[in-house]
Amino acid sequence: METTTFSKFSAEFFGTLVLVLMGCGSAVIAGADGTSGVGLLGISFAFGLSVVAMAYAIGHISGCHINPAISIGMVVVGRMKFIEAVIYIIAQVLGAIAGAAILYLIASGKDGYALADGGLGQNGYEAGSPAGYSLLSGFVAETVFTFIFLMVIFGSTSTKNINGGFAGLAIGLSLVLIHIVGIKVTGVSVNPARSIGPALVVGGQAISQVWLFIAAPVLGSILSAVVWRFLLERN
Amino acid sequence: METTTFSKFSAEFFGTLVLVLMGCGSAVIAGADGTSGVGLLGISFAFGLSVVAMAYAIGHISGCHINPAISIGMVVVGRMKFIEAVIYIIAQVLGAIAGAAILYLIASGKDGYALADGGLGQNGYEAGSPAGYSLLSGFVAETVFTFIFLMVIFGSTSTKNINGGFAGLAIGLSLVLIHIVGIKVTGVSVNPARSIGPALVVGGQAISQVWLFIAAPVLGSILSAVVWRFLLERN
Amino acid sequence: METTTFSKFSAEFFGTLVLVLMGCGSAVIAGADGTSGVGLLGISFAFGLSVVAMAYAIGHISGCHINPAISIGMVVVGRMKFIEAVIYIIAQVLGAIAGAAILYLIASGKDGYALADGGLGQNGYEAGSPAGYSLLSGFVAETVFTFIFLMVIFGSTSTKNINGGFAGLAIGLSLVLIHIVGIKVTGVSVNPARSIGPALVVGGQAISQVWLFIAAPVLGSILSAVVWRFLLERN
Amino acid sequence: METTTFSKFSAEFFGTLVLVLMGCGSAVIAGADGTSGVGLLGISFAFGLSVVAMAYAIGHISGCHINPAISIGMVVVGRMKFIEAVIYIIAQVLGAIAGAAILYLIASGKDGYALADGGLGQNGYEAGSPAGYSLLSGFVAETVFTFIFLMVIFGSTSTKNINGGFAGLAIGLSLVLIHIVGIKVTGVSVNPARSIGPALVVGGQAISQVWLFIAAPVLGSILSAVVWRFLLERN
Repeated sequence: METTTFSKFSAEFFGTLVLVLMGCGSAVIAGADGTSGVGLLGISFAFGLSVVAMAYAIGHISGCHINPAISIGMVVVGRMKFIEAVIYIIAQVLGAIAGAAILYLIASGKDGYALADGGLGQNGYEAGSPAGYSLLSGFVAETVFTFIFLMVIFGSTSTKNINGGFAGLAIGLSLVLIHIVGIKVTGVSVNPARSIGPALVVGGQAISQVWLFIAAPVLGSILSAVVWRFLLERN
Repeated sequence: METTTFSKFSAEFFGTLVLVLMGCGSAVIAGADGTSGVGLLGISFAFGLSVVAMAYAIGHISGCHINPAISIGMVVVGRMKFIEAVIYIIAQVLGAIAGAAILYLIASGKDGYALADGGLGQNGYEAGSPAGYSLLSGFVAETVFTFIFLMVIFGSTSTKNINGGFAGLAIGLSLVLIHIVGIKVTGVSVNPARSIGPALVVGGQAISQVWLFIAAPVLGSILSAVVWRFLLERN
Repeated sequence: METTTFSKFSAEFFGTLVLVLMGCGSAVIAGADGTSGVGLLGISFAFGLSVVAMAYAIGHISGCHINPAISIGMVVVGRMKFIEAVIYIIAQVLGAIAGAAILYLIASGKDGYALADGGLGQNGYEAGSPAGYSLLSGFVAETVFTFIFLMVIFGSTSTKNINGGFAGLAIGLSLVLIHIVGIKVTGVSVNPARSIGPALVVGGQAISQVWLFIAAPVLGSILSAVVWRFLLERN
Repeated sequence: METTTFSKFSAEFFGTLVLVLMGCGSAVIAGADGTSGVGLLGISFAFGLSVVAMAYAIGHISGCHINPAISIGMVVVGRMKFIEAVIYIIAQVLGAIAGAAILYLIASGKDGYALADGGLGQNGYEAGSPAGYSLLSGFVAETVFTFIFLMVIFGSTSTKNINGGFAGLAIGLSLVLIHIVGIKVTGVSVNPARSIGPALVVGGQAISQVWLFIAAPVLGSILSAVVWRFLLERN
């Protein structure tokens, strides 16, 4: 039986929910300090292993995009229809909001929890950057990191790649890598849904800065798709 | 030759023994401090890599559940008979107790070891929570984490998934992920046997709170099984 | 063409050299402190990833034992001839000594390096234990950890296991796991060659205690082989 | 359709760009301190996971050398033509320079960033060594580490190895291993392009010391190729 659109929608919804709950949850609950918490390395693994886990759980159902930048890139390289990408993106954004809401429910059960300060792992630049990086740094970083992320996705899932079974691992571990390098710059998005979910729950500065985490990942995705088709896997 | 029930029972016994001895052992012996010990990230890897190791060691014998919540979930999605699940659960609980006992034997060989304070990696909430999380937070976290864990198990071992060889890796790494996020909330169970073993050796508060680490994982497992059958892999 | 004994000997020699140089090297050069060094988690990964790397590099040549306890276990379960195991063990011990010697050459190039204090990642108990664990704790730990290690090896390389390609990863990651849990007890051996190499270069207490790291791993290996044949994979 | 030289050149260019940007970027942006940064372990994972990511992204296009020492080694063992290696090396060096330039653009967007001190993850010995290791230690370490790295590459990609799909993972994880052990000695190169890129942007001592990070990796690669052909995989 063919996988129905309803199953794909559900898979993208739950997959993005898990990514936001667990990725952002590692920062909010477990903490960025390497002595008493899991540290930046632990947070990096949380985001990447969320993708590894979901890739092998729902990859055979929806392809496990759980990221609007991926669905858009797949449209640009001609592997997905536009209308299907729209349905995927709706599921992804709803899942991200649900993930952020569940995270708030769990995290607020600790004495002294305050939503304001770094509350839900939201992304930001300048005053919102974990280490005070500029808007330019943030924009370049998010664009370049998404470019790299999509390059791994296009290549590891290419029909010309005989090691396709490793795609989930390679893609997830590349997200670990991107977080290791970029957390101090913007908190790392490369995924508009992952930024929109926490921003809607936290509000304030996270909302006013969320445009960058939509624009830069989409730009990086389109650039990567163009480079992939015209430079790397031409035919 | 068909694998006998005796072999399956033995595999589940030793597998759960290893999970409890090594997972809890990392917390008790190596320590949660990231400077002098292995840190929360190291403990997270210990639990998850125990599952990776056992999945490829005994997966071909018993399926490597080593967790009553998994056996129950498999019954609900119709992949296992009830009576077989009962036999598995007995083996798992006995293995968990044996693992906790061996851990106590090794750990008590250090000068100044006291069983009372965090003694055997037991789970808890409120006064028993590593960072003072409430009963509600603990219950929601254990239910949601088990839901996610079972989603990875159902999907990665589905007959529709052509990358079944990666299941052991995906499931183990998803347990690393769950520990990264959740250790500070309850110490993370998502596995009644893993909680019962240390609780029986430690006693006291660990015993009085163990009900949550039976109820929430079982609830999360059943919810996940229902969502899997009716939303994700319908047919 | 059949792989010659000479190639197998060379593979075991270089493989064990790499394990000792890189595993012990991580402790000696990079340091057990998690703030300024790689920490206990980094050392654990160094030992385990040495096995992952060598498994896929020389596994098709010699099987990549690089550990006398594994060769002995393989004899007990009937997968290897005794005389071949003797040749393997000679290569392994020579490789371990060469690895320890190269490590000393590199490490001594730093101002203030003193061989005496923790000098070459040697194993020990009581005064030689990193955290003062007793002889009994050390013996039980080394026996049980080797038992578990061999269980992963027997299972993941079993002809009944259809996921044999993952064996190198599962075995290496199980060695990461064992180090996470056990470094503070004995420094972790589970491999007589890995203990003999550094002990011969360092001398003193490391030599007088090396018997335990021969006896316990061999005992654990034999116990594991017996349990494997009579309880887990009977036929 | 056969992969064109243009596609291979592009793949090696982008692959090496990613390795330098992300590997060196982890040191420059995220930091070597294990409490506030990702620590030496995080930097080690960044370099190694860059290789894992690129191996599965572009391995089917160019073989993913992204390292002149690998291309030279492949010529010596007879798996690559000399002229093709020259083209690969040009792409690798150009990619490394581009990666270092992008890293400088992102990193300089932080208040107080100074290129001089550890600025771009450049390699060095003596005054340029992170922990004051001698020229001899640095030369031996780079030679031996490249020897080991190439041994993993020759073995995991051998036509005699039936687990070829795991090569990308094994090679990348072996680079994690090499960084865990060697960062304090030289910062770890084992790759002339990875050293040349940052050195050209930083200048000064990095330029005057870059000879070692060309000579030692090339020597290690040739030694490894000779040992591979005459001792390990003879025929």
